[in-house]
Amino acid sequence: MPNTPGKGLEGVIAAETALSDIDGKEGVLSYVGYDIHDLAPNATFEETVYLLHHLELPKRTELDDIRDQIGAEREPNELAMRLLPALAENCAPMSMLRTAVSASSAVDPDGWDTSEEANYRKAIRLVAVLPTLVAYYDRLRHGRELIPPDPSLSHAANFLWMLKGEKADDESARIFDVCLVLHADHTMNASTFAARVCAATLSDIHSAVTAAIAALKGPLHGGANEQVMRMIKEIKELGGASKARDYTIDKLRNKEKVMGFGHRVYKTEDPRATHLRKMAQELAEKAGDNSNYDISQEIEKAVMDEKGIYPNVDFYAASVYGYLQIPTDLFTPVFACSRVSGWTAHVREQYADNRLIRPDHGYVGPPPRKWVSLSER
Amino acid sequence: MPNTPGKGLEGVIAAETALSDIDGKEGVLSYVGYDIHDLAPNATFEETVYLLHHLELPKRTELDDIRDQIGAEREPNELAMRLLPALAENCAPMSMLRTAVSASSAVDPDGWDTSEEANYRKAIRLVAVLPTLVAYYDRLRHGRELIPPDPSLSHAANFLWMLKGEKADDESARIFDVCLVLHADHTMNASTFAARVCAATLSDIHSAVTAAIAALKGPLHGGANEQVMRMIKEIKELGGASKARDYTIDKLRNKEKVMGFGHRVYKTEDPRATHLRKMAQELAEKAGDNSNYDISQEIEKAVMDEKGIYPNVDFYAASVYGYLQIPTDLFTPVFACSRVSGWTAHVREQYADNRLIRPDHGYVGPPPRKWVSLSER
Repeated sequence: MPNTPGKGLEGVIAAETALSDIDGKEGVLSYVGYDIHDLAPNATFEETVYLLHHLELPKRTELDDIRDQIGAEREPNELAMRLLPALAENCAPMSMLRTAVSASSAVDPDGWDTSEEANYRKAIRLVAVLPTLVAYYDRLRHGRELIPPDPSLSHAANFLWMLKGEKADDESARIFDVCLVLHADHTMNASTFAARVCAATLSDIHSAVTAAIAALKGPLHGGANEQVMRMIKEIKELGGASKARDYTIDKLRNKEKVMGFGHRVYKTEDPRATHLRKMAQELAEKAGDNSNYDISQEIEKAVMDEKGIYPNVDFYAASVYGYLQIPTDLFTPVFACSRVSGWTAHVREQYADNRLIRPDHGYVGPPPRKWVSLSER
Repeated sequence: MPNTPGKGLEGVIAAETALSDIDGKEGVLSYVGYDIHDLAPNATFEETVYLLHHLELPKRTELDDIRDQIGAEREPNELAMRLLPALAENCAPMSMLRTAVSASSAVDPDGWDTSEEANYRKAIRLVAVLPTLVAYYDRLRHGRELIPPDPSLSHAANFLWMLKGEKADDESARIFDVCLVLHADHTMNASTFAARVCAATLSDIHSAVTAAIAALKGPLHGGANEQVMRMIKEIKELGGASKARDYTIDKLRNKEKVMGFGHRVYKTEDPRATHLRKMAQELAEKAGDNSNYDISQEIEKAVMDEKGIYPNVDFYAASVYGYLQIPTDLFTPVFACSRVSGWTAHVREQYADNRLIRPDHGYVGPPPRKWVSLSER
């Protein structure tokens, strides 16, 4: 007999993974055995990509290699470049990203080769190119000249360079790098799960990543970080941090959702939020502008007092990206630029020990009934 | 404690649905209470679309309305038309379809309106336009003139018209119509489930359908019908039906997969296969060419003798589409042209009573370990 789990598959183990683990009660997140509290201060995004794809930290030469590979694959392919102007003219950022990745499947140098090695190369290409698609899109829609990727820069610094056309200072680049580390993987989240469902039909890795981008876009998933920033901006217009508490409590009492709080898995603070809060504070001090940070603090306190719910990864990410002057509607695409490392690692893990993911349904429709011809309806 | 189900979520109820039901032991499939054996001889695809989206069969005026709506929305939007030449030049058919649907989200006349009414209109537009994208793509890649949709034709007849530039005879058009009816929905299949996972983040309906196309593409799902045709062609080259048994048995004894057989859910004959087998036979007689049908029969007998496994929906669909002279690499896109009716109905059902689909994971990676600096690795 089928098994009836909680709605939304809560608590149901959908797949096994060696990539990340969460203890939601204790607030622990680890990648391949390394605690996120060790990774945040120490790891670069490139090391994290290596870790997720090889299940070990890279040695010096291995790290040099993966940096070189990523650096060499940042230029979008010809088809993506041909489509980008039309996409920049018409599409919201996540629609552009989903469409450009979807199209790129057709022209990957490894074609339909589905060997482990080819899928690894495709994964690295996807990790490499996503930030360029986002930055090029942003510059195209503003009629600005494209700034080609600089292979000598870290993945984090290079994105800020392509986006803004000026080199980020070391502290900002490192903070953005830590953001990429923090967002890289998170067990069986909805976009990763969508990627695995797709990969389990033995569809290709580009299809799986396209499905993941499609899922990340939703406001109950990656889309939340943009909603947080819109809320902060609304509060600024109302007068700033002093208005945040009343605004938040009004929202909660009207049963509206305050984005960036609570998580299916964590029953305590999301360990990623701890780092993002600290970085938001550092950037506020550096900028001499506490507004994002102070408003965020007030919202956090109000939600805790009213509902006892903790901020999640999206909440302080909004302030951090705001201080880094990333346009609000690029927050979710930036999330994708990091999570693509986890998506591709999960897809490769799914392929390596695959079974079609095809659950059962509970039927709640009408009982069996007889056909009625059109004239008798 | 998390619940450990069978691998691939076998037997786990992932969601409730009123749209379709399966009794795998008895080989029963129904849409909203109507048995597929009643729908196949009686229902048109347009009636099926209405049934899946309204949970009742249409009355005469309602059927006229949905026919008009579908007929009026068959022309691709301007952005899709702008991208199609590049996609036709570069992409395999499913990559084109996934990319064109993804792009179309940006220019839907209902924009980001997520009301029930807007999502219904978007659903009808997607149902309406998919066959045109497929037909235009095929004509573009062969340098043929595009044949605009004819709103006076049924959805089935219109597709064959746009694809081939000649009107199908009534029998062929009706057989293709029945194919569309048979493929329209199938409970929690992998592509529908991918669409629901995506929709459950409250991502938009185009994103969900893009994810579904991405999943359908896999050879363990919709991609199987093309593989069946490639097998039939291989056997033809070996000498035809007399070679089919040995070919099949060799394949099975070499542990290779024979596509189009077996199903997660059915423990007896897939009721859709019954209709498709019959239609393949009718078309063989009509064409005066039994080759596809005879080869299929021989493969079926050999697989039954060796493994006791039944053909699924993909097996005889291949012969039918072959007789209808649909190019082999369009079989899976044609599946999508039908299943989009179910996908969009499932997405609307998910929105109507939503909870994020976010399962748990089983961690199988290394135990907690301490960070090691680069120089000490």
